[in-house]
Amino acid sequence: MKTPNIVILGAGYGGIMTTVKLQKILGANEAKITLVNMNDYHYQSTWLHENAAGTLHHDRTRIPIKDVVNTKRVNFILDKVVSIKPDDKKVKLKKSELDYDILVIGLGFEAATFNIPGLDEYAFTIDNINSARLIREHIEYNFALYNTETEKKQSRLNIVVGGGGFTGIEFLGELANRIPELCEEYDIEKNLVRIINIEGSPSVLPGFDPQLVEYAMNSLEARGVEFITDAMLKECKPDGIVYEKDGRHEAIPTMTTVWAAGVRANAIVEQSGMNTNRGKVEVREDMRAPDYEDIFVIGDCALVMNPENGRAYPPTAQIAIQESDVVAHNVKALVNGGEMESFKANIMGTVASLGNNDAIGIILNDQKLFGWKATIMKKIIDNRYLLKLGGIGLMMKKGKFNIFY
Amino acid sequence: MKTPNIVILGAGYGGIMTTVKLQKILGANEAKITLVNMNDYHYQSTWLHENAAGTLHHDRTRIPIKDVVNTKRVNFILDKVVSIKPDDKKVKLKKSELDYDILVIGLGFEAATFNIPGLDEYAFTIDNINSARLIREHIEYNFALYNTETEKKQSRLNIVVGGGGFTGIEFLGELANRIPELCEEYDIEKNLVRIINIEGSPSVLPGFDPQLVEYAMNSLEARGVEFITDAMLKECKPDGIVYEKDGRHEAIPTMTTVWAAGVRANAIVEQSGMNTNRGKVEVREDMRAPDYEDIFVIGDCALVMNPENGRAYPPTAQIAIQESDVVAHNVKALVNGGEMESFKANIMGTVASLGNNDAIGIILNDQKLFGWKATIMKKIIDNRYLLKLGGIGLMMKKGKFNIFY
Repeated sequence: MKTPNIVILGAGYGGIMTTVKLQKILGANEAKITLVNMNDYHYQSTWLHENAAGTLHHDRTRIPIKDVVNTKRVNFILDKVVSIKPDDKKVKLKKSELDYDILVIGLGFEAATFNIPGLDEYAFTIDNINSARLIREHIEYNFALYNTETEKKQSRLNIVVGGGGFTGIEFLGELANRIPELCEEYDIEKNLVRIINIEGSPSVLPGFDPQLVEYAMNSLEARGVEFITDAMLKECKPDGIVYEKDGRHEAIPTMTTVWAAGVRANAIVEQSGMNTNRGKVEVREDMRAPDYEDIFVIGDCALVMNPENGRAYPPTAQIAIQESDVVAHNVKALVNGGEMESFKANIMGTVASLGNNDAIGIILNDQKLFGWKATIMKKIIDNRYLLKLGGIGLMMKKGKFNIFY
Repeated sequence: MKTPNIVILGAGYGGIMTTVKLQKILGANEAKITLVNMNDYHYQSTWLHENAAGTLHHDRTRIPIKDVVNTKRVNFILDKVVSIKPDDKKVKLKKSELDYDILVIGLGFEAATFNIPGLDEYAFTIDNINSARLIREHIEYNFALYNTETEKKQSRLNIVVGGGGFTGIEFLGELANRIPELCEEYDIEKNLVRIINIEGSPSVLPGFDPQLVEYAMNSLEARGVEFITDAMLKECKPDGIVYEKDGRHEAIPTMTTVWAAGVRANAIVEQSGMNTNRGKVEVREDMRAPDYEDIFVIGDCALVMNPENGRAYPPTAQIAIQESDVVAHNVKALVNGGEMESFKANIMGTVASLGNNDAIGIILNDQKLFGWKATIMKKIIDNRYLLKLGGIGLMMKKGKFNIFY
């Protein structure tokens, strides 16, 4: 019998953790493992907002694949997935084509812009290392331009963030801390800069505990963030946006619109012909696609129902990491003929940072945290992931330890 | 008799040194001293190419006026000079108007673009802190954009420097050292980046010792700089330039053209109605304008003839600083009725840096220097100026002491 060919697509939270686990639990002769990723690094997408604001260097956010994956054991292919052909058991990459016996799809998310005019062209999104770094540079470039122009353009100093969900709020927190530094660097008066959040719901962080939401808004407003809630972004232009509130259209001049109001699963999944629900594969309890015995889907490409309330789990790093336990176990079971496990989420809590020195969170389903306690909790969660992924060495190298400010 | 009113326009090398000397040699009751400058800082224009390349932070290049000028003794006005009316003994500023009894004009240089189409609009110049910082940001922004675009644009990685004179060559030296760092920061392969110098003469640094010119070109070419000599820039567009060589027009795609091929005196001097020669006032031996007993002109706004060869001294920091000795002495002589001095240049040498770790120079008129000896000499010259301007404290704070790399 030939050695089964396991192919893992994507080295996000789900893909990389599955790979790291499989290289431990599968013997070298039991299966061939191939990991495909478009970069030679894994990155923590939950830290990208810090890279975008410029408060954390992007090299802290990314981890070279070879630092956590044993490339003697795992065949790493640096390439971009073009399409998946589940019926032919093939994956088309830009430069080659792969056959698989078992496939793990962990291709992550992309920004969803809901056909709002101009958003694709002119708004920035916090998707990956390149796009996050570009936001940092774009803001700095506009601040540098401001003082070189005879006619001062306020649009260079206005930053609009679309969406007051998790990413939006965390980005606002970093930005609010970063602006005073930028003003010093570019000789700009701090009170000229505006940071504006536009949120469609009556409140930011919809669904989150109201007391914590108020804490977050107070913390950000104290640092100069303006909130416009119940407002819809209608159009994005190179030098401004238009939003609708109370039936009226209002304009804000800005060169910098960061769209943080929606993500969707990588479109390749939908294009593969598999059954999808809003772009995601509604997986079985064992994390396999409903119609294919040999395809697992993980992370933001998978829709996993919470049997307790009949709703889907949110697309978080925490869930993706937990799914990788089950996916790795079940891939091994397929290879060896062992018993499959079912996914069961164990939500430890949710913490949103509000900059390096403030945060809000709920842990163990009901305990509220804010301020330095929540900040510490956030950093513990981040460090714990690094420990699981690459051991103490990686945690020491990339972890966050300045927990008291 | 009323206390004479001394007004100094501009806090460049000539203006600030004149002010610092006058505050020492004139008693508080002898004269009122006013310094006008458009920034609240003095900057070393000979260091701006380092800020533009990103190898030195601009805060190292600038010095707060209040750190070197005693603002109890000198009335500092933060404003921009609009016009000078020598017959009315008035200076119009943006926000006010000043009367003077004795005027010192040290308004410095601006870029000369010789009506080359597009140069004013699309080329960058190394004129001041704001424009130098913008070049740094512009290059970084284009490098950041490169990896976010599906269709890779080589124009983002091509940097064209117009002019192989002193500023051009010194900028190229810094840029050549900076590019490898930028490539690492923005995930770009180093061999994709092109740095191209376009010079109208058959060789760069025209008039400089040929052996040292060859040394400089070898040093820069070894670090990837391409030279196109005997070539004229004909047009600058947002995404490229056109130059003419051997009667043919050639195009280079580039988003970044830095024009370092010409400066002229601040146009306000010419507009004042004083007699000028190519925008500069050909001063008398005592540094006064020919037709006005009460106006001194210093630095790049002054044309000073070398009696030995009948040619004008070059517009350098060294000359401006030496002129300030004579100007300060003669202003005091006008106030007190003492004897006027004549300017006599004492050219100690000329050193051009080729990055932080290489340089070429001629000292004491004939001795050639290159490599680390020239680098040390350059830094000694720079540190000596800081010592003269603000004492040991300023030299220690802003000086350059890493002289062995």
